[in-house]
Amino acid sequence: MQKKYLLAPGPTPVPDQALRAMAEPMWHHRTPRFRNLYKEVTEGLQEVIQTSQNVYCIGSSGTGAMEAAIVNLIDTGRKTVVVRGGKFGERWGAICQAYGIEFLPIDVTWGEAADPAEVARVAKSDPAVAAVCLTLCETSTGTHTDVKAVCDALTDSGVLVFVDGISSVGACEFRMDDWGVDATIVGSQKALMTPPGLAYIALSQRADAAMETCCRGRFYLDLRAYKKSLPKWDPPYTPPVTLFAAQHESLKMMRDFGIQNIWQRTADFGKATRAALQAMGLALLSKAPSDCVTAVCLPDDVDGNEVVAHMRDVQGVTPAGGQAQLKGKIVRLTHMGHIDKFDILVGLTALAQALAAQNHTVDLGKGVNTFLKLLGE
Amino acid sequence: MQKKYLLAPGPTPVPDQALRAMAEPMWHHRTPRFRNLYKEVTEGLQEVIQTSQNVYCIGSSGTGAMEAAIVNLIDTGRKTVVVRGGKFGERWGAICQAYGIEFLPIDVTWGEAADPAEVARVAKSDPAVAAVCLTLCETSTGTHTDVKAVCDALTDSGVLVFVDGISSVGACEFRMDDWGVDATIVGSQKALMTPPGLAYIALSQRADAAMETCCRGRFYLDLRAYKKSLPKWDPPYTPPVTLFAAQHESLKMMRDFGIQNIWQRTADFGKATRAALQAMGLALLSKAPSDCVTAVCLPDDVDGNEVVAHMRDVQGVTPAGGQAQLKGKIVRLTHMGHIDKFDILVGLTALAQALAAQNHTVDLGKGVNTFLKLLGE
Repeated sequence: MQKKYLLAPGPTPVPDQALRAMAEPMWHHRTPRFRNLYKEVTEGLQEVIQTSQNVYCIGSSGTGAMEAAIVNLIDTGRKTVVVRGGKFGERWGAICQAYGIEFLPIDVTWGEAADPAEVARVAKSDPAVAAVCLTLCETSTGTHTDVKAVCDALTDSGVLVFVDGISSVGACEFRMDDWGVDATIVGSQKALMTPPGLAYIALSQRADAAMETCCRGRFYLDLRAYKKSLPKWDPPYTPPVTLFAAQHESLKMMRDFGIQNIWQRTADFGKATRAALQAMGLALLSKAPSDCVTAVCLPDDVDGNEVVAHMRDVQGVTPAGGQAQLKGKIVRLTHMGHIDKFDILVGLTALAQALAAQNHTVDLGKGVNTFLKLLGE
Repeated sequence: MQKKYLLAPGPTPVPDQALRAMAEPMWHHRTPRFRNLYKEVTEGLQEVIQTSQNVYCIGSSGTGAMEAAIVNLIDTGRKTVVVRGGKFGERWGAICQAYGIEFLPIDVTWGEAADPAEVARVAKSDPAVAAVCLTLCETSTGTHTDVKAVCDALTDSGVLVFVDGISSVGACEFRMDDWGVDATIVGSQKALMTPPGLAYIALSQRADAAMETCCRGRFYLDLRAYKKSLPKWDPPYTPPVTLFAAQHESLKMMRDFGIQNIWQRTADFGKATRAALQAMGLALLSKAPSDCVTAVCLPDDVDGNEVVAHMRDVQGVTPAGGQAQLKGKIVRLTHMGHIDKFDILVGLTALAQALAAQNHTVDLGKGVNTFLKLLGE
């Protein structure tokens, strides 16, 4: 009888229309039906990413698309700059390392954002640097990177800008073409309201040119094959058909609501949630918080793993806990995708109850009032 | 109002239970529920593959798992032997080529099977050969390879045997451990009755050891990360949760029916379908037909692409046509997965109607009678 609520920053809840699309009798991808759907999904993604460039759809987790950026665009002998301020920034470095690609790390304290001027300085310090690898929202800490400022600081430098936008493109403001981003990576399972299993990568013209000449070995992630297949909308390998069908439905909903309205809504939710948590006497982890996921620090007198387990098992509400060095120390609540104000109130309430179960009392009422007031209600 | 029938060799029809599992409200993978499901899926796959070794689950098409075999097991300076008798045999070669791995090709006429003794001879001719790459069922031609005979001929040679079993493991007899296969690759969307998007690879002990020492760069397909995650059933990257849920249901059905009963049923269907088509006066493409997909040659007096389009659009029945040099020349009907005798009769009937639409008459009744008689009915 327990109702379940999913409030983790990915996978996020999937709308009914998209769930039902996956439950349709199985159908084939070498058909006019799939080609039409593939084209419309791609066009929807262009709108979400704010680009007129090609978007390539890969059947993989978001990590696969991050690796695609590296293996298609960083030729032998070239280096990268990697901003590491959490688990996903570290992943950029791990991918480079796996291929023996030297990278200049910019390590920032978890929960802090990199300084755009410093990123540009390091990138320009070595002519072998081909790209800077950023994380738009570092999901592990709920921290936002000012991608536009990094792009501006790198104008005319010839250095490409890669953005892991897996957990915020489609939720927070992002303008690939206007800002001058060269590779944008998105995942299906966050702001795009689709189950995990599809990843997307959009390339600027200069990135597309670099892909064509890059000598590095790759096959399933070789974006040249995806590019070649686009004019006929005939994917190079058997695509995850049901996930495409779900993504098609979710993108329709996003288009109907409008991407700029989505950005505004996420911003409002992020701001109101942070204020509510602070009104409840809790501290935020991030000094540069992203609007799409809030990481709240747990008081010293509670067992953090127990808080997550209580929320999930007793309250029926699944948040995310902390990863790596933050394990047991934070709870993360998403504001992306198919999440409304009531979901966030559910999350705040379940968190308060989980803290109370360990005899740590917070003023939930003050949090709720603050939340609704900031939303103008 | 038109009812739809999917008779292509992948994706194949997905049972209702599996479709409904995907339509459940979205849920999270870092939970006891997912860990339990992940474990049970892995155990089900071990039964299907007939192995007690580790099976790694990758969110990708089957091609991703083929590439995983190459990048994890073929170290720098080593070579492979590739049997090329169709589009998927050629893919093994294309993957090697993408990484600059030299391979000794054994080219056989499309529709014919490689001679196991010849494969072993070539593999032993060069000490740099690390592995032989086979295709259990070459889906593009409906041709079966005698994997056991190849393994027997390579006993004690030190050469690994890789089997692309994407479209027949789980339908046709296959015994990884007994036969001595070193890497078995399977896809979710064929005999395993799940939508595309998950691929599986099982490694023998000596293959697992080769993986640990292989220096080749790889990340998303690095099986060491999957191996490391197994004891805790905590996948290295966000897995395609809905596809796992579907696979879990389909594997339960397979276990209930019994893998050996499935093998027998597929063998019966293959034999009866081939006899029926011949009774209808049509020729088979393959000289060594697989039981899991039948490729039938289309008469010279019809437009083959039109036959496929008529079956799909007018009759509501989706087969596969030919690929590459066989485009327009064959129709392929599957006998794998959630396919019963009535589905195959639907396929034969739709084919006869599509031929009749181009004024080529076949004796469908004779085909139907032959089909049922051979099934003992």
